[in-house]
Amino acid sequence: MIMDKLIDRIVELKNPTVVGLDPRMDYVPESIAKDAQDRYGRTAIAVKYALLAYNKGIIDAVCDIVPAVKPQIAFYEQFGAEGIDAYFQTVEYAKSKGMIVIGDIKRSDIASTAEAYSDAHIGQTDVFGEKMAFSQADFITINPFLGADSIEPFLKNCKDYDKGLFILVKTSNKGSGDFQDLIVDGRPLYEICGEYVEKWGASLVGRHGYSSIGAVAGATHPEVAAKLRSLMPRTFFLVPGYGAQGGGTADIAGAFDKNGLGAIVNNSRGIIAAYKTERYSGLGFAEAARAAALDMKADLGTIL
Amino acid sequence: MIMDKLIDRIVELKNPTVVGLDPRMDYVPESIAKDAQDRYGRTAIAVKYALLAYNKGIIDAVCDIVPAVKPQIAFYEQFGAEGIDAYFQTVEYAKSKGMIVIGDIKRSDIASTAEAYSDAHIGQTDVFGEKMAFSQADFITINPFLGADSIEPFLKNCKDYDKGLFILVKTSNKGSGDFQDLIVDGRPLYEICGEYVEKWGASLVGRHGYSSIGAVAGATHPEVAAKLRSLMPRTFFLVPGYGAQGGGTADIAGAFDKNGLGAIVNNSRGIIAAYKTERYSGLGFAEAARAAALDMKADLGTIL
Repeated sequence: MIMDKLIDRIVELKNPTVVGLDPRMDYVPESIAKDAQDRYGRTAIAVKYALLAYNKGIIDAVCDIVPAVKPQIAFYEQFGAEGIDAYFQTVEYAKSKGMIVIGDIKRSDIASTAEAYSDAHIGQTDVFGEKMAFSQADFITINPFLGADSIEPFLKNCKDYDKGLFILVKTSNKGSGDFQDLIVDGRPLYEICGEYVEKWGASLVGRHGYSSIGAVAGATHPEVAAKLRSLMPRTFFLVPGYGAQGGGTADIAGAFDKNGLGAIVNNSRGIIAAYKTERYSGLGFAEAARAAALDMKADLGTIL
Repeated sequence: MIMDKLIDRIVELKNPTVVGLDPRMDYVPESIAKDAQDRYGRTAIAVKYALLAYNKGIIDAVCDIVPAVKPQIAFYEQFGAEGIDAYFQTVEYAKSKGMIVIGDIKRSDIASTAEAYSDAHIGQTDVFGEKMAFSQADFITINPFLGADSIEPFLKNCKDYDKGLFILVKTSNKGSGDFQDLIVDGRPLYEICGEYVEKWGASLVGRHGYSSIGAVAGATHPEVAAKLRSLMPRTFFLVPGYGAQGGGTADIAGAFDKNGLGAIVNNSRGIIAAYKTERYSGLGFAEAARAAALDMKADLGTIL
């Protein structure tokens, strides 16, 4: 079961961190950007080359100390089809380095359409009678707003291909309250959402007691994470918002269980662009990423 | 204002129809599929060739009688980067034939990430200092679950580039009730959502009285469409669910205003795969699409 593999690797590395591969072009080191333009001009292909070189440098630097990466597809999709190709190649490269990959795609649609997304990202697509897997991702994030039937095709692929999901329950942004916090029958919508997620994962619980159907629970809402932890005992949490988004260790402690498991914490900019900060000045982008990842591991260690 | 352009074209053609370009491979005529494989083998490039040939045939057949097309990106994304390229090329081809294009992408994320989606689909992306537009779409669909701040980057691009949105308010699937119908302070969540949409469009109202920020309101919930019509007087509706999904004209009448405006109705399979039905048997896929589009226009005419 894929959630067992993720937890095994977290335990092995003593590190519940996922590195967010959100490669904004202004994070990409000047030397890589220049090399890409020299080869391919000011084109989307040059961007693809640059994003891949940058990501590979980060992945190589952290793959033996961090269990997982989470490429955010929007930062690739913004460069069109070449960008999407860079996303799929990034996923493939991280897998080849033994990392667990969470594709942060936040897709959603009615069932017949969700099936196409599911096949694209955690399944296989029929190409003139042959099955092809376009993505090697282990997990993807999805948005539950369309309801239970919109989730079914994803659950099916999780079963058929041993994949997992992280379903949005409470996001880390300020506006998350606009809908997710609305009170329904005396409790916030995100709790109702959390109940569905717990139920959807019931048949995919692994030997660590967590199912392959996880939830996104933002670190910027500490009391919420703790509440959800108690309401969703079988649901593993993907916790965004640590570091650059303002969440610290105190804010995320509640997301973990009494054994120090139950959550993986994302950090994007704080690791991949660490070389741009005073703290890691003088280091190359990959060395700085490794140093920042080790510092984050130590930081998380204080609460585990 | 882009919503004015859409409404002008609807009025000119007397047809509030949008053709959903959801090209499942089993809809693609045998002759096109064979030609694609002969040229490119069983590859994603062959799929791209086939999808484009099919879509161009449909677009050529309906562009003088239907105002808009709505390619559903999932059916392209399922074929990886080549599929996404087919999506962008479909958008471009439809634009070149004078059609309004609604990119059905249902994206959503926190603001800093939503900006990347917004730039990709209704804006421009910086490529080594040069601005590039990867999509020519006029409108996109988005999912509001992450709240107001997640919508801001899309609203900004609507203003900067004269684009529009259709935001999910009440979808056409059965499971839409799981979250969208939950009662908050005595009324369903979709009404609260609708209120936000109405507000977000306030500064983008055109000369027809409708803003460029529209809403998705499913045809499978007739009483809902009528209620939302009265609550959201400035919001234009994209109505899915007509035809194959079970909604008929009686179900969608409430989505229109007293002047017969206010909504555009989507039909995907019922038009693009019409040649596979008994009613249009003997016609080629493009001729059948045109005949089905004309029949739908007549059908909608009975309620306008």
